[in-house]
Amino acid sequence: MTKCSLIVIGSELTRGIIADKHGQLVSREMTHIGVHMSQIVALPDDGSITSVLHALKKSNDIIIVTGGLGPTQDDMTRRCIADVFGTELVRDDECFAELRKRVGEDKALGANEKQAYIPRGFTVMRNPNGTAPGFYGFDEGTFVFALPGPPREMEPMFYSYVLPKVKDLLDIRDSERYEYTSFITAEARLEELTERYAKVDWGTRFQDYRISLYASCDDKTYLDNAIAELKSELGPCRIVDGNTSALVILTDLLKERGLKISVAESCTGGLLSSLLTSQPGSSEYFLGSVVSYDPSVKMGILGVRGETIERVGVVSDECATEMADGVREKCLSDYAVSVTGVAGPSESEGKKVGTVCFGFSSKERESAAFTLHFTSWGRESIRRKASVTAMLFLYLYIKGYDIVKISREWTNI
Amino acid sequence: MTKCSLIVIGSELTRGIIADKHGQLVSREMTHIGVHMSQIVALPDDGSITSVLHALKKSNDIIIVTGGLGPTQDDMTRRCIADVFGTELVRDDECFAELRKRVGEDKALGANEKQAYIPRGFTVMRNPNGTAPGFYGFDEGTFVFALPGPPREMEPMFYSYVLPKVKDLLDIRDSERYEYTSFITAEARLEELTERYAKVDWGTRFQDYRISLYASCDDKTYLDNAIAELKSELGPCRIVDGNTSALVILTDLLKERGLKISVAESCTGGLLSSLLTSQPGSSEYFLGSVVSYDPSVKMGILGVRGETIERVGVVSDECATEMADGVREKCLSDYAVSVTGVAGPSESEGKKVGTVCFGFSSKERESAAFTLHFTSWGRESIRRKASVTAMLFLYLYIKGYDIVKISREWTNI
Repeated sequence: MTKCSLIVIGSELTRGIIADKHGQLVSREMTHIGVHMSQIVALPDDGSITSVLHALKKSNDIIIVTGGLGPTQDDMTRRCIADVFGTELVRDDECFAELRKRVGEDKALGANEKQAYIPRGFTVMRNPNGTAPGFYGFDEGTFVFALPGPPREMEPMFYSYVLPKVKDLLDIRDSERYEYTSFITAEARLEELTERYAKVDWGTRFQDYRISLYASCDDKTYLDNAIAELKSELGPCRIVDGNTSALVILTDLLKERGLKISVAESCTGGLLSSLLTSQPGSSEYFLGSVVSYDPSVKMGILGVRGETIERVGVVSDECATEMADGVREKCLSDYAVSVTGVAGPSESEGKKVGTVCFGFSSKERESAAFTLHFTSWGRESIRRKASVTAMLFLYLYIKGYDIVKISREWTNI
Repeated sequence: MTKCSLIVIGSELTRGIIADKHGQLVSREMTHIGVHMSQIVALPDDGSITSVLHALKKSNDIIIVTGGLGPTQDDMTRRCIADVFGTELVRDDECFAELRKRVGEDKALGANEKQAYIPRGFTVMRNPNGTAPGFYGFDEGTFVFALPGPPREMEPMFYSYVLPKVKDLLDIRDSERYEYTSFITAEARLEELTERYAKVDWGTRFQDYRISLYASCDDKTYLDNAIAELKSELGPCRIVDGNTSALVILTDLLKERGLKISVAESCTGGLLSSLLTSQPGSSEYFLGSVVSYDPSVKMGILGVRGETIERVGVVSDECATEMADGVREKCLSDYAVSVTGVAGPSESEGKKVGTVCFGFSSKERESAAFTLHFTSWGRESIRRKASVTAMLFLYLYIKGYDIVKISREWTNI
């Protein structure tokens, strides 16, 4: 098995000022292509890289070094690699020309000039995001790659040079990588569901309010079929193609149609409104909301009937409908969505934690409401799931779908 | 200089499934007491720790190992340390008794029993949060500490055993460490301000909506004076004693006095309400809010006068006052706070990004309003600062302070 070690250089790491970000990225990608990560080592800017390089070179096929390529005295990765790989530093004319273009004639000499030097015989990796180029070379069975430390310089270089080169060395043909976005389903559960399709190489990345799902497979028909089955099993809008978010799905439609919305919240307590106003330009589609936390506010501002609350409680389809109708009329919006439920930690009105009702109202169409029962991973998780659900179903409602029917098709929530 | 290395064990790290958390914690604390961190190494659960331990033992005074102490076959830290330190594993009776108490008689044997074994001559570090105790010992000039991997087990053990023991070895007398909480001021600016007091050893930790500020100083009078000066320079409520949050400061008061509040938001778009409802039990003090994003909602629901908006705009003390009065009357709350401002990215009504007006209303007292000009670090930062400010000033308003005067004393926002 191909063995790889990562050395991250920076006294800001060994002094605890910042946490390393490269370790996880490199390990994940290397593991993904079948390379065994034997070590991730963080070292200060004190030249100790030399002895570590010597030791790792003996037992690794690939060594990736990040950091220590800058113009300051502490940055000695360049020299140490040349020493350990038995070569010397030479100025690379193209790198120097690029440096001159970037920092100007006068600043390109002096300390900065150092950055245009690379070990003789090594290959340059261009850095469009900073002054220090990276480089790689080979000696006695070991490839070494040196990359700059700042993530916005390191990451693009890793993906455009290191990963392709390593795949090349291992003769890995890239199957194309497809990206999807998954909503509401917990990451562990999503992984269980995707694992059934063993011919697909799956990857997930947990993001705020969504999970990015990556898939590569030599057999595109098999992959398409797997995705279609997953989509059908989870229900509409639960897995969508590409990298997107519930907010973007909804607001793209609102902007396209020139629609204005309003919101009535209870258990989400303002989170849904906060999301809807998080992007610049949200005043284009968002008029306002009422967070009717107390039943008195549901009645007082939104006009929910006391009789409704007494009869079926505030966590009910009826109350959700009246909230949505109420806020739409008060804000004079085209559409409105409402959320009322039990975020926990304790149940309420005899309804379990995770029970959430959604109401939808429109000028043009009949109001609608339904109830979902989310698996509880805590108060914040229920508030998040409820906010995402409200956005996705408002999208479906505006599109004219039968949302009550669709809500019954949702599984694994 | 005392040299220390950290070895974190876990294939979940070298496979990129999780990111290491211990590296930064241990480095920060060690650096803080003058220990030089020479390496942080992450290794898989494959026994490779043995050779790494051998190498590091030669050049380090202290080696800290985390992970690999569990009951599964992969967990071999215990055995490898015994090997490298030339001793054998023996069952510690107290540890075994504790294990039996924790997992039950039948489960204490078999794989679990392994966890009660420690290298002969080593000292046990108790683990109140899990089944695997830690241990430490000494050989040929090097101390080795072994701790369990899960952060909630590792961190308490690190602070109660490792750090005190290392300080003891280095004969470091603890100056007492004081903790404060800072609001609104940017971390970089806070560091500039504290740096002027060079006799204090400062530390900061950025948290959501606040910064924790740590200080130790042999001269307590000097420290007290430094803190008093900082408090006076930044303005009331900007640095408070202890570890707390704006939410806790406000809601403790609300609960103590049995008060109910309501909120009118504009530029914060629901974030303030979302924070106020983030904790269980928030219905005790929070009645509801109106996110009046569009001027029509400010007028329609909150009763802000069209004349006011025409004359001074929605980003004005007058509008803020009318919003606060309006929401308080609609929700029938004891107190109300309002926020209306320019979150950006572009200016509005000729008012700069970062201009935010706050209004306060009460049954018992005259309404009040003021405007602040936050330094813009982007839309989200302004929304956050405005939400925290609203909570702190609502606290001061309820307490009966002259909040308009105090708002003028706030600097470095």
